[in-house]
Amino acid sequence: MKAEIITVGTELMIGSTLNTNGPYLSRKLTDQGIEVAYHQSISDGREVIEEALRIALGRSDLIFLGGGLGPTQDDQTKEIVAKSLGRKLIRDKDLEEDLRRYFSSRNYKMTQNNLKQADIIQGSQIIQNKNGTAVGECLALDRGYLYLLPGPPREFEPMVDDLVANYLPKGDFDIYLKSIQVMLLGESTIESRLRELGLESPETSINTFAKLGEVEIKIISKLLREDPDKAEKLAYHERVIQELKKEFAPFIYSEEGEDLAQALVQKLIKKGQRISFAESITGGRLAQKITSVPGASKILKSSYVTYSNEYKIKDLGVSQDLLARKGAVCQEVADEMALGLYKRTGADLSLGTTGEAGPISNENKPIGTLYFSIAHQGKLVEGKKLDLRGDRQSIQEKGTILVLSHLMAYLKRGENHDQ
Amino acid sequence: MKAEIITVGTELMIGSTLNTNGPYLSRKLTDQGIEVAYHQSISDGREVIEEALRIALGRSDLIFLGGGLGPTQDDQTKEIVAKSLGRKLIRDKDLEEDLRRYFSSRNYKMTQNNLKQADIIQGSQIIQNKNGTAVGECLALDRGYLYLLPGPPREFEPMVDDLVANYLPKGDFDIYLKSIQVMLLGESTIESRLRELGLESPETSINTFAKLGEVEIKIISKLLREDPDKAEKLAYHERVIQELKKEFAPFIYSEEGEDLAQALVQKLIKKGQRISFAESITGGRLAQKITSVPGASKILKSSYVTYSNEYKIKDLGVSQDLLARKGAVCQEVADEMALGLYKRTGADLSLGTTGEAGPISNENKPIGTLYFSIAHQGKLVEGKKLDLRGDRQSIQEKGTILVLSHLMAYLKRGENHDQ
Repeated sequence: MKAEIITVGTELMIGSTLNTNGPYLSRKLTDQGIEVAYHQSISDGREVIEEALRIALGRSDLIFLGGGLGPTQDDQTKEIVAKSLGRKLIRDKDLEEDLRRYFSSRNYKMTQNNLKQADIIQGSQIIQNKNGTAVGECLALDRGYLYLLPGPPREFEPMVDDLVANYLPKGDFDIYLKSIQVMLLGESTIESRLRELGLESPETSINTFAKLGEVEIKIISKLLREDPDKAEKLAYHERVIQELKKEFAPFIYSEEGEDLAQALVQKLIKKGQRISFAESITGGRLAQKITSVPGASKILKSSYVTYSNEYKIKDLGVSQDLLARKGAVCQEVADEMALGLYKRTGADLSLGTTGEAGPISNENKPIGTLYFSIAHQGKLVEGKKLDLRGDRQSIQEKGTILVLSHLMAYLKRGENHDQ
Repeated sequence: MKAEIITVGTELMIGSTLNTNGPYLSRKLTDQGIEVAYHQSISDGREVIEEALRIALGRSDLIFLGGGLGPTQDDQTKEIVAKSLGRKLIRDKDLEEDLRRYFSSRNYKMTQNNLKQADIIQGSQIIQNKNGTAVGECLALDRGYLYLLPGPPREFEPMVDDLVANYLPKGDFDIYLKSIQVMLLGESTIESRLRELGLESPETSINTFAKLGEVEIKIISKLLREDPDKAEKLAYHERVIQELKKEFAPFIYSEEGEDLAQALVQKLIKKGQRISFAESITGGRLAQKITSVPGASKILKSSYVTYSNEYKIKDLGVSQDLLARKGAVCQEVADEMALGLYKRTGADLSLGTTGEAGPISNENKPIGTLYFSIAHQGKLVEGKKLDLRGDRQSIQEKGTILVLSHLMAYLKRGENHDQ
């Protein structure tokens, strides 16, 4: 079963908007064991939409068309699709009622254009939209299904979730999915290790999804519901999960699909430990990652961005002599930052970062050099030099993720010792 | 002249990578007055590549094919393109030499697969790649041009810049481009104002490009080089720029393509003013935005993330009584944070933020409430309540950009008074 995604919108063609709908839907379909074979992006225009649809109808079983369902004149997707399929547009009385209620409750004036949103293509099922006035549609075709969805991501994404749960053809397969989040290893390292392990089977595939410094490993098994060997194949799926969990054990930070900061905040809340940061090179990013997680106030003590030597001395008590002798970019300064921070805040975990993000090196240290230090109850427990590559922002961002990763690895080691 | 972009890579089809190459190239082509009409994304596979190329050759004048030029077996784009066009692949002796030198200088072993990178399609011009071993190619076709480019963005993007400057067909047009960066106004507000102004002409188009809280307005005029009315049309282009600069004057923060943080750091350096932040709801994001800009160390004094009431009192001297009486989420606390911060750091500009990012409200204030306060030389000059929508991270991020925007607007007003 081949799937094809068509995203409509002139803003996509001039590059003014990143297309996030396509990848969002792609991930969800891949999770269902469905192969996404094609993705077309086109501008808002009758001929191009007709052409894209014609191409897709000729080669794909599931067609997803996103965008062009709004009430403005540009949004003519529905009419074009109806015409291409030789079907009529029918005014849905319930939808019309809903729209009238929506507009009158807000004291908006409703135009004929707005009413177009109550038209649906003959024979289609309505997919409700909780975040907007344009509903989605699901049409059974000779060969498969066509889905119409609105373009704005905050409408598109929840509707995709609904669609995947309730409007995909129930094939003869059951899907088993497990996700493992890994830190401190590059995607290519993980992929070559996966190739060596050779665990994939016709039913069980392993995909990796990389974000900066974090990699998600997804194990997907697509098993025929009536397969006589199903129990055995399901056991194999479980075996693959166990092998990967063993293989990457020190590097796994979550099996719940969380990002690193979320997993870290949860772990600290569970341990009842509080944290604080003294940031030079990371410039506020450590605090920012932690405060982006709900519940951060439970575990974050005061945090400092001490970018200048002056405040490393004043706020953290870093030795003036050390700074004069070795400069700000060295392990000793990171250590003194972490220790000085502990004195100030008494946080269970205090972290210091210092380094050179470029583009010009102030102290003649290589650009991309980062030192971090972690103190636990005021005792130095972990500190290291990282050599980072890329431009200023990549160095800062990558460094932040790596420092949080080393903190997580430290906390994990502590748990293993406890056991 | 219609352009079509084809991006190849299975990682795009399963949604594991956002496609940034397509939008990057789209923006560059739009800047050249070239209409991008189609964008196809496909997986690494002989048939799908052949099919995509066949479709594109039938309808587009400029075809850009990105990805699939690496040395691994998946990367077969070049062979497929050559075959589709009925041309041969020819080993380029200079490229072979370069590759051998590259591998021997790094003590890497070179395989037959690696050598494939020295093959180019008969009749094509080579586009050099400064960041990788896969060169690009430019082929003249009957109808137009076909360009092959490697997939990794750090190779793709500089090669696109080179391509746009040197390998696009010299049409009969000259392109005039001006970019204006606007803050504190939504894209839809700007667009409806642009519609009212009605300044577009057949030669002069106006596009908007929105990032969170920042909008870029681009004025592009595409003038026939030999147009007898060229001078007049160019004067019109300039008039449009002047009208838009007048229309959006209080909201323009740059005409140099900078982002808001860059423009702010430049302005503060020019003024010789230093800044510091006391962040509660923004959680380190203000410092992070400023430190992401080179030269930030010149203008950033120490900065604090005081997430808890305890440290609002301890580090900033916010009154315990006030916190007990009115809670942390109010204008008075933001004001006291800004003033307390000035006492600590003596920064010319000190900013405080407090608010409720959700998902649960601690003090029964509406989620999305943000108060900020700006002190200039220890005197309160600007403070306001913002009502933000979205999830926790959107509230924090949008709030950060808006606070920086209000700071920029304050600095701009100061300059106008000075004049």
